[in-house]
Amino acid sequence: MSKPTPLSGFPELLPAARVVEREVIASLSRTFELHGFANIETRVVEPLDRLAKGGEIDKEIYVLRRLQAGDEEGDAGLALHFDLTVPFARYVLEHAGHLEFPFRRFQIQPAWRGERPQEGRYRQFTQADVDIVGKDELPFHHDVEVMRVMVDALDALPIPPVSFQFNNRKLIQGFYRGLGMPDVTTAIRTIDKLDKLPAERVAELLVSDAGATAEQARRCLELATIRVADTSFVEQVRALGVEDELLDEGLAELAAVVEGCAAGGHANVTVEANLRIARGLDYYTGTVVEIFMAGYERLKSVGGGGRYDALASDGRTTYPGVGVSFGVSRSLIPLLADGVLAGSRAVPSAVLVAVVDEESRSVSTAVAGALRARGIPCEVAASAQKFGKQIRYAERRGIPYVWFPGAAGHEVKDIRSGDQEAADPASWIPPDEDLRPQVVRSSSSTEEKKQ
Amino acid sequence: MSKPTPLSGFPELLPAARVVEREVIASLSRTFELHGFANIETRVVEPLDRLAKGGEIDKEIYVLRRLQAGDEEGDAGLALHFDLTVPFARYVLEHAGHLEFPFRRFQIQPAWRGERPQEGRYRQFTQADVDIVGKDELPFHHDVEVMRVMVDALDALPIPPVSFQFNNRKLIQGFYRGLGMPDVTTAIRTIDKLDKLPAERVAELLVSDAGATAEQARRCLELATIRVADTSFVEQVRALGVEDELLDEGLAELAAVVEGCAAGGHANVTVEANLRIARGLDYYTGTVVEIFMAGYERLKSVGGGGRYDALASDGRTTYPGVGVSFGVSRSLIPLLADGVLAGSRAVPSAVLVAVVDEESRSVSTAVAGALRARGIPCEVAASAQKFGKQIRYAERRGIPYVWFPGAAGHEVKDIRSGDQEAADPASWIPPDEDLRPQVVRSSSSTEEKKQ
Repeated sequence: MSKPTPLSGFPELLPAARVVEREVIASLSRTFELHGFANIETRVVEPLDRLAKGGEIDKEIYVLRRLQAGDEEGDAGLALHFDLTVPFARYVLEHAGHLEFPFRRFQIQPAWRGERPQEGRYRQFTQADVDIVGKDELPFHHDVEVMRVMVDALDALPIPPVSFQFNNRKLIQGFYRGLGMPDVTTAIRTIDKLDKLPAERVAELLVSDAGATAEQARRCLELATIRVADTSFVEQVRALGVEDELLDEGLAELAAVVEGCAAGGHANVTVEANLRIARGLDYYTGTVVEIFMAGYERLKSVGGGGRYDALASDGRTTYPGVGVSFGVSRSLIPLLADGVLAGSRAVPSAVLVAVVDEESRSVSTAVAGALRARGIPCEVAASAQKFGKQIRYAERRGIPYVWFPGAAGHEVKDIRSGDQEAADPASWIPPDEDLRPQVVRSSSSTEEKKQ
Repeated sequence: MSKPTPLSGFPELLPAARVVEREVIASLSRTFELHGFANIETRVVEPLDRLAKGGEIDKEIYVLRRLQAGDEEGDAGLALHFDLTVPFARYVLEHAGHLEFPFRRFQIQPAWRGERPQEGRYRQFTQADVDIVGKDELPFHHDVEVMRVMVDALDALPIPPVSFQFNNRKLIQGFYRGLGMPDVTTAIRTIDKLDKLPAERVAELLVSDAGATAEQARRCLELATIRVADTSFVEQVRALGVEDELLDEGLAELAAVVEGCAAGGHANVTVEANLRIARGLDYYTGTVVEIFMAGYERLKSVGGGGRYDALASDGRTTYPGVGVSFGVSRSLIPLLADGVLAGSRAVPSAVLVAVVDEESRSVSTAVAGALRARGIPCEVAASAQKFGKQIRYAERRGIPYVWFPGAAGHEVKDIRSGDQEAADPASWIPPDEDLRPQVVRSSSSTEEKKQ
């Protein structure tokens, strides 16, 4: 074998960075479970005809083929999933008879897209999704519930501050309808381009593509400029003088989501109503959200989601859903690359048990067994080198303590301070913060301000 | 969308079964980390030329292709990994400059093989691997260490009893060499067929294929019948009268592995020297092991591994390794299908907070928030139905407690016993065993005997 070269778009973490990723996934899972969300994993493959429903996503799909199988075999139509929503919708339909609705689930798995790799965009990437799906109906209060879960989950993470920017499709649609816009769908898709194009250009497109008058286009843009961190947007929209029942419903829903998510306050999350958030995808029908990370606006959103009144349907039953997704790889890999986050050490071991000579290795093994029995991760030195070399062995791995077994009694050394003291394998414990590898935030990251 | 049909070979778990799988993975991870093994994940794809090194494995590989990409693009040569050893060897070579050796790692990930699905054999399956890899050299004591880790890890699982059956390639090779066998490699591959063919047939093949005399074949089979749960095999082998230095080394190593793994005793694991275990693969050079699960001998081994003196090499440096793999899917999916293991409930929630009426939903949400702040998973009822219906909602999900908020005070009901008592959201806690879903073993499984 020759030395392999990295594969672009398929990032791999070294053990210390993997510590960070695992802790983030564990933290997300803890929050999701506190809110009653059950974990599932779906198989990574779906029939191609479920994935390729037209649209540009087709290009990005990886299809599978057995190396030496003919096309007549069943596997020919399989492909890797490109998100966790399509497989979840299929899982709900396939297993509906065994699920209780409303069904709350979280799912943290990789997905694959063959797109051009760049910072935050990878060909294999991990997402964390929470969704609530109902059978035939799903009351609105679940919108507040599921968004609040993700707010709490991201607030608990050691990442830079994140901003949840909410809007509501009913609000936009009702406003456009009340305004007399001829083509609401195209108008929404056009206004969604505000993050890429200047406002004047979007106004032109609203006229040319969505059939708006110049005055209508102006008021659409006026709506899109409203952005506040409380429910004062309701008055601001009212002041624009458009009347519509759907608009009223959207305003009430958005106000409830903003209030419910902001309640109690969060240290690391800000909640805003941002009326230019549209999310281009057609299937959203109410609440929509995009999540941004301070200092990393160049990644665009690190998460998003919303309400879709028909997540899945088998022709007889419709399953409405509401959910939100967080890009674990999209946010973490840049943070790790920039040194904003790091693992405190590359090994789980809190203690290296030194070996006096190979004949007495079993003594060191017994010490390690006693420590493990009390939940202290440790390893026994690989060889009976001079103690100085064994200490450097621990240092290189970031192991904080070296244990010296001795006939006259045991001693343990904190190799950071150099302090050495007598210790009993049956009772000694390290400080809590040394027990497991920790996620370390660089000081520069704490200076970052919210956008 | 129509109702989807299951995909053969790609099993998916319902939420309660997933509770079992997650707890098994968490338990394995805890043990591995206590022993200082660092977790890594590799990307799921490898260049095809690293996977397809000849041999029948080729047939089982899934290759990838971007749906709308030409073959000239780089992805054409990628395929899904079929185990965790090949990607680990590549990871070690690629990242060697950033790793400390000996490097202890564990890896719990799915792998894919396009083989015909059957009980215990799936096209997507999860494995848990532990390996120790050295640079240039890896002392023998690591064989004992890594095998002991897996013994401890499986002993902590709620599965039927497992048996570790060890042998040593040096022992077999030395014995065959001392016996004057002309073709040791073919003889090992032949003796490995003892689990599929009767002994007489294997003896015939040793003569016809490996060039043995009838007397040599008889003594090879004699060696292969030795199977003991202690180190008495050393005397039994000596009694066969073959002298060889490599045989001596193999006997000493196997004795050390059996002693090291059996020491202290285990409730759920037996350790044996079984001198017919050969493991056909050429790359093993010392310790070999196969793991069997009581009552599930039909699955063949549920795990295995050994020492390979050249796990990886870049031409200048060789990385010897020793490791063992446990088939998470291979063992768990049959146990779940047979009802031997089950999750106690399908949701994490320990408490359903009832809703008196929609106007007071915020009261119930506040109770849930107070419980969660103290680590109690809970959910708020989906609708303000009559309490009887809300209780049945909890029952269907296996949620043990229903909380009734009230202006005059709160009450909580254990819906299994019917007991209801006053409770304070700021202090009430459920018994520990109700806090999270548990893995439940059926009584029939506890009656199973070791093989």
